[in-house]
Amino acid sequence: MKTTIIGLGLIGGSIAIDLRKAGLASALNGVDTNEANASEALQLGLVDQIGSLEEMVMDTDVVVLAIPVNVLTRLLPRVLDLITDKTIVIDAGSTKGSICKAVQSHSRRNQFVAAHPIAGTENSGPSAAFSGLFENKTNIICEKSSSSEQAMTIAMQVFDALGMHTIFMEADEHDKHVAYVSHLSHVSAFLLGQTVLDIEKDEKNIAMLAGSGFASTVRLAKSSPDMWAPIFEQNMEYLSQALQEYIIHLQRFQYHLLKRDSVQLHKTMTEANSIRRILEGIETKRLTTQTRKTQTA
Amino acid sequence: MKTTIIGLGLIGGSIAIDLRKAGLASALNGVDTNEANASEALQLGLVDQIGSLEEMVMDTDVVVLAIPVNVLTRLLPRVLDLITDKTIVIDAGSTKGSICKAVQSHSRRNQFVAAHPIAGTENSGPSAAFSGLFENKTNIICEKSSSSEQAMTIAMQVFDALGMHTIFMEADEHDKHVAYVSHLSHVSAFLLGQTVLDIEKDEKNIAMLAGSGFASTVRLAKSSPDMWAPIFEQNMEYLSQALQEYIIHLQRFQYHLLKRDSVQLHKTMTEANSIRRILEGIETKRLTTQTRKTQTA
Repeated sequence: MKTTIIGLGLIGGSIAIDLRKAGLASALNGVDTNEANASEALQLGLVDQIGSLEEMVMDTDVVVLAIPVNVLTRLLPRVLDLITDKTIVIDAGSTKGSICKAVQSHSRRNQFVAAHPIAGTENSGPSAAFSGLFENKTNIICEKSSSSEQAMTIAMQVFDALGMHTIFMEADEHDKHVAYVSHLSHVSAFLLGQTVLDIEKDEKNIAMLAGSGFASTVRLAKSSPDMWAPIFEQNMEYLSQALQEYIIHLQRFQYHLLKRDSVQLHKTMTEANSIRRILEGIETKRLTTQTRKTQTA
Repeated sequence: MKTTIIGLGLIGGSIAIDLRKAGLASALNGVDTNEANASEALQLGLVDQIGSLEEMVMDTDVVVLAIPVNVLTRLLPRVLDLITDKTIVIDAGSTKGSICKAVQSHSRRNQFVAAHPIAGTENSGPSAAFSGLFENKTNIICEKSSSSEQAMTIAMQVFDALGMHTIFMEADEHDKHVAYVSHLSHVSAFLLGQTVLDIEKDEKNIAMLAGSGFASTVRLAKSSPDMWAPIFEQNMEYLSQALQEYIIHLQRFQYHLLKRDSVQLHKTMTEANSIRRILEGIETKRLTTQTRKTQTA
């Protein structure tokens, strides 16, 4: 299957590696407006050739868009304009409402599958790509009924090859859930990082006093602003609600703290402890999937 | 050196393991008011015998207190009452102001060393203890001038045996810095956990949609409320300031978000990205220490 990857960073690069590894991509074309990234991706062997959007989407079976969501919303209609009847287009954006809306009336809408493969690290660029990034992770496909049967078949082949577990949702429902479970944790980490940097003017103090706990909590503050600012903007309404809830929870905690209300502080923390069960559930699910794969391999 | 550990959880247990391994502790006594914990610690071989506080601190060289800071503040004067001239007492509490104040006029104050070995995991209890927890981590000793030379010598032997890098600070300065670098990240994680649990009533959604990023950011929400509620209360003033700063940063971000002010959102996130350099500095420092140790070994 001839495959074109638009955006050769962590996500696009990792998709390229695993589609080739699975034998699904027979030839890999790459497009990246950042020339340094494009050359690096070619040099790393992520793709076989690089070129302009117009050249690379001609005569290809699948186009995967792995670019910041603001560029994605603009570029997707253009890609659908360029392709022929045989090409399927899949995106990997972390928001789905704006993206689905951008092509809802496009004559080739049914050749497009709106997806969100939930995986990533705090690193970016072609050199951050690696095999296995998507293994056992959740992929969300939105507005399934707007995609043709053939488009869905190809998309499922792609996500199965990446080792993902695909579920289906409406775009609005997707944006609401990820606001809490993904986007809010990024905001929480970015602002924790900025707060500590603002106060601790002497960075040596942070370096000396920070334990592994701080490192873990603030890890997502290393994420790419180019990728995340557009996500936050496109999911502004739900993220703003989530952020408001978070601020209210923090303020209530501060109120109990100022009152030295041990009972309430303890209660809040005990409730938050339930997250342990859920996180362990995620681990168990992943291990089970791995075991099942090994057994059937 | 006869050593008594009061509090046989993650911290006390891990200290016991590494003091024995380093050959510093010739005999290990344990005290824990939780009988199940005490028996488990004995069974795991963390300590050689368990008993009452009064029995266990008699005729011992070092007493290490590794208990929640509220109990610590109450128990420390009592321990100093019970010991003889030859015994040194060290604590491992995460706050230092209240603890130092609790014994500032005690006749045996100079036999006490106020310490904060900065290490931990989100797990607790004797079975969570492991060798190497403190290796290459920072230890803070406060109000050094209030401890006798002999007390400092013994304390340094203990922390060197644990592989720690010790620095010195006043108690107030300690409490201020850890409010930002440690306590605030715990509050941030506890409340992120509670917010998401409050909104996502169906836990399956969290389990399915949460990526490794959410797991990392919320990890500290698994921490023990028995340990952390008293820390927050004792460091109420500085923590409340830190929390207020964090809330203000979150609110400003929300304001820029509502205005869809891309420039400001991007700027904030780029500033927060600096944390990468600091976190990498911590890693480099630890690796350098490890290399130096290997070379001199």
